[in-house]
Amino acid sequence: MITLETIRTAHDRIRAHIHRTPILTNQTINELSGVHIFFKPENFQKIGAFKARGGLNAILQLSEQERYHGRTMGPVTTHSSGNHAQAVAFAARQVGIKAYIVMPRTAPQVKKDAVKGYGAEIIECEPTLEAREAGVREVIERTGAVLVHPFDDDRVIAGQATAAKELIEDADYDSFFDAILAPVGGGGLLSGTALSTHYLSPRTKVFAGEPEGAADAVLSFKSGKVEKAPYINSLADGLLTSLSERTLGYIREHVTDILTVSDAEISAAMRLVWERMKIVIEPSSAVPLAALFKNKAQFTGQKVGIILTGGNTDLGKLPF
Amino acid sequence: MITLETIRTAHDRIRAHIHRTPILTNQTINELSGVHIFFKPENFQKIGAFKARGGLNAILQLSEQERYHGRTMGPVTTHSSGNHAQAVAFAARQVGIKAYIVMPRTAPQVKKDAVKGYGAEIIECEPTLEAREAGVREVIERTGAVLVHPFDDDRVIAGQATAAKELIEDADYDSFFDAILAPVGGGGLLSGTALSTHYLSPRTKVFAGEPEGAADAVLSFKSGKVEKAPYINSLADGLLTSLSERTLGYIREHVTDILTVSDAEISAAMRLVWERMKIVIEPSSAVPLAALFKNKAQFTGQKVGIILTGGNTDLGKLPF
Repeated sequence: MITLETIRTAHDRIRAHIHRTPILTNQTINELSGVHIFFKPENFQKIGAFKARGGLNAILQLSEQERYHGRTMGPVTTHSSGNHAQAVAFAARQVGIKAYIVMPRTAPQVKKDAVKGYGAEIIECEPTLEAREAGVREVIERTGAVLVHPFDDDRVIAGQATAAKELIEDADYDSFFDAILAPVGGGGLLSGTALSTHYLSPRTKVFAGEPEGAADAVLSFKSGKVEKAPYINSLADGLLTSLSERTLGYIREHVTDILTVSDAEISAAMRLVWERMKIVIEPSSAVPLAALFKNKAQFTGQKVGIILTGGNTDLGKLPF
Repeated sequence: MITLETIRTAHDRIRAHIHRTPILTNQTINELSGVHIFFKPENFQKIGAFKARGGLNAILQLSEQERYHGRTMGPVTTHSSGNHAQAVAFAARQVGIKAYIVMPRTAPQVKKDAVKGYGAEIIECEPTLEAREAGVREVIERTGAVLVHPFDDDRVIAGQATAAKELIEDADYDSFFDAILAPVGGGGLLSGTALSTHYLSPRTKVFAGEPEGAADAVLSFKSGKVEKAPYINSLADGLLTSLSERTLGYIREHVTDILTVSDAEISAAMRLVWERMKIVIEPSSAVPLAALFKNKAQFTGQKVGIILTGGNTDLGKLPF
């Protein structure tokens, strides 16, 4: 159970280790959309993505508990080819413990280098979910490492919730936003965003953007059961995972709707942000803005917050 | 003669029309360079480049004089394929007057669209300096428009000087910076930067970065005469012009040195900024950082301000 107090404590815990990212606005994008958009650029966050928040909250909380029990903290582990790998490696370094990151051998070298740069040990595996999970099990058996799951963990979700908490706090007044939009993959950020908004700005609605090529959340949201996506094929490489029972529960309780968008719409929104705002965002970050443009009429004249999730993308492989 | 009072008045004149861009720092780039770097990101400025400052100061000052004399202000004109075209079009719109922009027919459509978007009229010409100057003469004869030169104009230079003024004001204390670096093309920004630094932070040295493929300023700086570049061929498309007598005078008086860099060095510095700072800068913006990396030993441990001049670049044609 994540209460307002849980999120406040998470924020106090991680505050010294993260950036309080600003709010950005852009006149042209407002004119094009007819919406007053307030961006929370987590591409400027430590490790280049909001995931630093969740990784830190989980690992700092583990560290507090170990200290409370008078124990020295052991290693942590996770499997990820993306931002969560860097988040766990970074957070472990902040605490001074070892991290074992299971990564598919096909992960881009630049991501492997970033993880190594934080002092973590990489265990390579085949690029399948089975191999990744087996890799983590092997690490846990061998080293006693604690798993930090990318989203199916209340400590991680409470950490991710601090992004929307800051956005709401930095707005002019309570319930300033008509809506807040975040992308959905495994649902950690979306759950945290929905919880912070529920507690701190209860009149604000929360919407998710989801790629058509990984459209599990919209199905699960409707059926009430964790569903698989009909097919997986999207630019938005950070959003390819399915929800868990836990994140589906938070999302069904506190999210108004999930809006799907095509890769062409994601690419166009991404390019618009790069060209007009002069900031580098990864494809997943562009999904909520693409969803807003696709559903303009619904948001006309409103004040809408959008969480730009990260900026870690291969500059040699732009979709436009 | 540009005094401190000239620059202060310019700043007061344009303040309501521009963004006060922040100061950005990046831990990785500091570690890689061994220098404490403070970036002034003018890619976030109106029109996506510092040129908005100079264009506004010139056109607002013209407008004040016309009003003082009880006249209605006539149109303005310039020739440019780049940021100055947008700056003049934007500033003219702010004042509510007509702008005629002479642009080579080969200029990218996106730049023509931006100029049209500010309500200016484009006159296309052949892509030669002669044709551009002839185009402007024709406009002046036909419409009585006033020329706003991109750099050979004290009003423009005083406007550009406000970027360094803000950088110095926003630092912790007087003479905080050991050095401030700006790129040099025609020398408007560099002159303004050197003048503001001379008046407001006299112990701070000013350096310029210049592309090897447009290396006129470094020659002129040494000889004391306006020289032509041995050849013109650089990524840094905003820096291909030569100095004027006026800018050479300011630069010889207040600049410590001009450091040249290759296109490969510019491209590497540009990529580093995109990847690590998650911001979109144009090649010209990366020139001072490239110069700093090339001359690391000279700046080790120092506090260095760098003006990132703009972010208007064709995303379809990245050099990396």
